[in-house]
Amino acid sequence: MMQTVKIVLDTLGGDKGPAELLKGAAEALRCHPELSFVFSGDPVLIREQAGELTIPSERFEILEAPVAVTQFDHAADALFQKTESSMLKGLRTLGEREDLFGIISCGNTGVLLPGAVRYLSGAKRVRPAMAALLPAETGGFVCLVDAGATIDCSKDLLLHFAHLGSSFMARMYGIERPRVGLLSNGAEPTKGNALVKETHPALAEDPEICFVGNIEGSRALSGDCDVLVCDGFAGNQVLKVTEGTARRILTDIARYAKKTGSSDALDLFRHLMGVYDISSLGGGILLGVEKPVLKARGDAGAQAVISISQMLLNMAQNKAVFDAAQNQI
Amino acid sequence: MMQTVKIVLDTLGGDKGPAELLKGAAEALRCHPELSFVFSGDPVLIREQAGELTIPSERFEILEAPVAVTQFDHAADALFQKTESSMLKGLRTLGEREDLFGIISCGNTGVLLPGAVRYLSGAKRVRPAMAALLPAETGGFVCLVDAGATIDCSKDLLLHFAHLGSSFMARMYGIERPRVGLLSNGAEPTKGNALVKETHPALAEDPEICFVGNIEGSRALSGDCDVLVCDGFAGNQVLKVTEGTARRILTDIARYAKKTGSSDALDLFRHLMGVYDISSLGGGILLGVEKPVLKARGDAGAQAVISISQMLLNMAQNKAVFDAAQNQI
Repeated sequence: MMQTVKIVLDTLGGDKGPAELLKGAAEALRCHPELSFVFSGDPVLIREQAGELTIPSERFEILEAPVAVTQFDHAADALFQKTESSMLKGLRTLGEREDLFGIISCGNTGVLLPGAVRYLSGAKRVRPAMAALLPAETGGFVCLVDAGATIDCSKDLLLHFAHLGSSFMARMYGIERPRVGLLSNGAEPTKGNALVKETHPALAEDPEICFVGNIEGSRALSGDCDVLVCDGFAGNQVLKVTEGTARRILTDIARYAKKTGSSDALDLFRHLMGVYDISSLGGGILLGVEKPVLKARGDAGAQAVISISQMLLNMAQNKAVFDAAQNQI
Repeated sequence: MMQTVKIVLDTLGGDKGPAELLKGAAEALRCHPELSFVFSGDPVLIREQAGELTIPSERFEILEAPVAVTQFDHAADALFQKTESSMLKGLRTLGEREDLFGIISCGNTGVLLPGAVRYLSGAKRVRPAMAALLPAETGGFVCLVDAGATIDCSKDLLLHFAHLGSSFMARMYGIERPRVGLLSNGAEPTKGNALVKETHPALAEDPEICFVGNIEGSRALSGDCDVLVCDGFAGNQVLKVTEGTARRILTDIARYAKKTGSSDALDLFRHLMGVYDISSLGGGILLGVEKPVLKARGDAGAQAVISISQMLLNMAQNKAVFDAAQNQI
């Protein structure tokens, strides 16, 4: 019998509303017969939409949680007052039920992160990191950590992120000694802001880390390293500036294609969209918790749900590798 | 009679050596009859190269300064021991001689900045900022300040940069109230690292600044603001990540053009190179000193010298506007 992979989808908290996210889920279900969902949110809305999208009833469950965590909620308040929200109830249920593999949420990161710590970190309670997997120039992926969840960081936190990123890349892609780089304003070891200068020797001296030194922003996605460590402010810049530049150049190409009617330009545009449309790429992955928590962007649509479901299925396929490796670390 | 614009070119200190830089100067002289140069460096080398490039002798002077400031020189040491270097003698001569308009150097920024303060800041001695003029999506330019010269910044320094950037954009492009944005990890006023959160209200309350709020990395070059304020570490990321992403996509397009032999793709590649080849775009501009100091990248070649000379000529044409406005500020 086929092993099913059951994923919680937090249908509330995103900018585009549950209908759009469920559309993505329906498409993901069509592509992947081994997939099934637990839709967390307003049961009336979910039932209505699932009916319209003709999602077979055996492919999903409903978790009744009609309250949304909003972008305006403060973490501390939400953690106490919104325990029955689609996000927090989803996280709790994921922690409680063995048959659930992971969760997708496009809700408030400021609540998602401590929520995951509460329900999914067991006894450890260390601060998780938000990682982003970005396409490397040399093929494969670069794990950018932190990708924007922890804005102000200390040296110890960056070291911790290096360990989380290394261990993730080892488990996820079977890389024996993932190469760890430190984002800086120059490749030389003397370059960096105060935080980078303090962190550099600590990474170099850590015997568990395969440190390859400072990496400049222009080489962030070159493939010079498997894990790129930085504070969440810098990580957010890497993500957003890459996205802004790619979007702008792609817009130029689309304009050119339209103006000239060139089919080559249109072909090129489609090809590049597949590689560089960061908004449809997988979301952030929370590292340091017991089960996969995937954060989609606030403005995530159907395509993001499809991509992230695919990512979770990949992770599930590697689960045996995962678990074996985790015991060794 | 045509008004000549005389520019100092520091021929040493770059990765590619004086021959390459002089090639750029020769080409700039061919394009602009009003331009002339003072070549600072090794007189033997300069004479030889100028001869080979057939640069007319009335179009250049030689400043004898055969010692180079290297990337390994520390600012304090170089400022005392290398006063006769091509960079520092060039700066000093620019400060002393009224007929000289500005300087181009691709040497060590760590020495260039305090060198400019010593010889070109008059009585003020405030810390200058390194600005970069980047092509905005809406046309015109965004002044990114600081672009990488001052890596760790305080709130007061960022405020100072906002003033320098505003005043520059007002003088350079005649923008009456340049819109100032603050680079952050989200557009909301509550977003930011500790430095950004502290700086935000100070910018908002400053009556001389037209503050438009936080700007995300994805909108850095959108044209939402005329001046984008950030610390040098973040500014370096914006520049380098933009460059890395653009280079990568352009490489993809070139590959496609080669593989398919598509003339449309080649045409598109050439067009995009003109807009996004940041390495050939003008260099950093030092704000807060009495004369234009333009920093080219360490690996700058002939094309960079041509672009930056053009930029200096534009600035010289606006000099009347400049001086008039400066008196009001």
